[in-house]
Amino acid sequence: MIETIAFDADDTLWHNEMLFSEAEQLFHEILADYADAQTVRSKMREIEHQNIRLFGYGVKGFTLSLVETAIELTEGRIDAAGIHKIIGIGKSMLSAPVLLLDGVRQTLEALHGRYELLVITKGDLKHQQEKLKASALGRYFSRVEILAEKDPGAYQDIVIRHGITPERFMMIGNSLKSDVLPVLAIGGHAVHIPYHTLSYLEHVEETDIASARFHLLESITDLPGLLGQLQSEATP
Amino acid sequence: MIETIAFDADDTLWHNEMLFSEAEQLFHEILADYADAQTVRSKMREIEHQNIRLFGYGVKGFTLSLVETAIELTEGRIDAAGIHKIIGIGKSMLSAPVLLLDGVRQTLEALHGRYELLVITKGDLKHQQEKLKASALGRYFSRVEILAEKDPGAYQDIVIRHGITPERFMMIGNSLKSDVLPVLAIGGHAVHIPYHTLSYLEHVEETDIASARFHLLESITDLPGLLGQLQSEATP
Repeated sequence: MIETIAFDADDTLWHNEMLFSEAEQLFHEILADYADAQTVRSKMREIEHQNIRLFGYGVKGFTLSLVETAIELTEGRIDAAGIHKIIGIGKSMLSAPVLLLDGVRQTLEALHGRYELLVITKGDLKHQQEKLKASALGRYFSRVEILAEKDPGAYQDIVIRHGITPERFMMIGNSLKSDVLPVLAIGGHAVHIPYHTLSYLEHVEETDIASARFHLLESITDLPGLLGQLQSEATP
Repeated sequence: MIETIAFDADDTLWHNEMLFSEAEQLFHEILADYADAQTVRSKMREIEHQNIRLFGYGVKGFTLSLVETAIELTEGRIDAAGIHKIIGIGKSMLSAPVLLLDGVRQTLEALHGRYELLVITKGDLKHQQEKLKASALGRYFSRVEILAEKDPGAYQDIVIRHGITPERFMMIGNSLKSDVLPVLAIGGHAVHIPYHTLSYLEHVEETDIASARFHLLESITDLPGLLGQLQSEATP
């Protein structure tokens, strides 16, 4: 049965989307004299979407997109002090403390030693490494893989390099697009644990995921139970 | 003798510092009404140095530092159009074509098949992967390692993971700090091929590197000759 379990990091092991929501709130306040919250949000998403191909995921690209959004929305009327505040938002995000999701440590403690545990995440290399260090979860994982994009090819590369049989591999994460669909595509198991907000960059068309290798859980603490159940089904 | 040869990427396989120099030139022009080139350069380096711990290496962090430099230097008088131009500099750098250094392709062609070839580089994960793809050099390398920092621990981790004996490992690069010293520290061979300009973030105290495992070359095209020489010295 399952031998290797890989975890997404942002919004699976620790809170992340929360930081982006707080950043968006501060950004709205800076632009309050120029546009209403809805206009700010929609322009921000437009610019971020335009830039994602060039900037990729992560706080630095997000911050550059906020600066650009502010300039466009104010038609160049935003002053340097406003821009400086926006850069300050990005810096605060990069140095924010890492807050684990409920039950993460106890779940890893329960699985550690019985399964090979990995982290597979995307985003800024340096920032993700620093968050993992700050999380103090490093000792549970035999390997941390930080990718520019989580697509089937990237997962395929990892299972080949680690000599993992896809049928014995399980990915746990909050994103259907990044953690579930590409892993099902290469023949692995995938567990979706939705975070309470869904990132707008991660939107996936509603699909019935009709795979025996797909599982939906409410909390990471349900994972040992699911693994036990799969184990007992596999053992006649 | 040597079995595995790893290459740094920026300013070893392809031009990179050149893009930063050009960016600096454009940045000077934007600020020409506010400060002379020397003042701009010195403030830019001060801010970049302050931010490197938070931003790490790469174009996005560099661009954020330029924006901050412009705001500080102009005491907030720079307008949004100026800031927008600075972000445009960053975007141009991210989408700039990859220009190989002279002799890179022929050297890799000569070594490929006789040695295991790797890339070990640092910086933005996504940008480095894209540059490698654009370089069309991917087929020569069995593995590409992108690191947040090139220190002895990071090299140690790579040789362990790849099952490489350090005495049979050789690193090629333009930086004493990142490509030479940490590799000598773990018992590997290191070849320094200086690029014509030295990045000010890479400054290393002048040292006599007294190691039989250290080699200085003027061009990457001298590498097959060096390897042949080492081989003939090792074979009585």
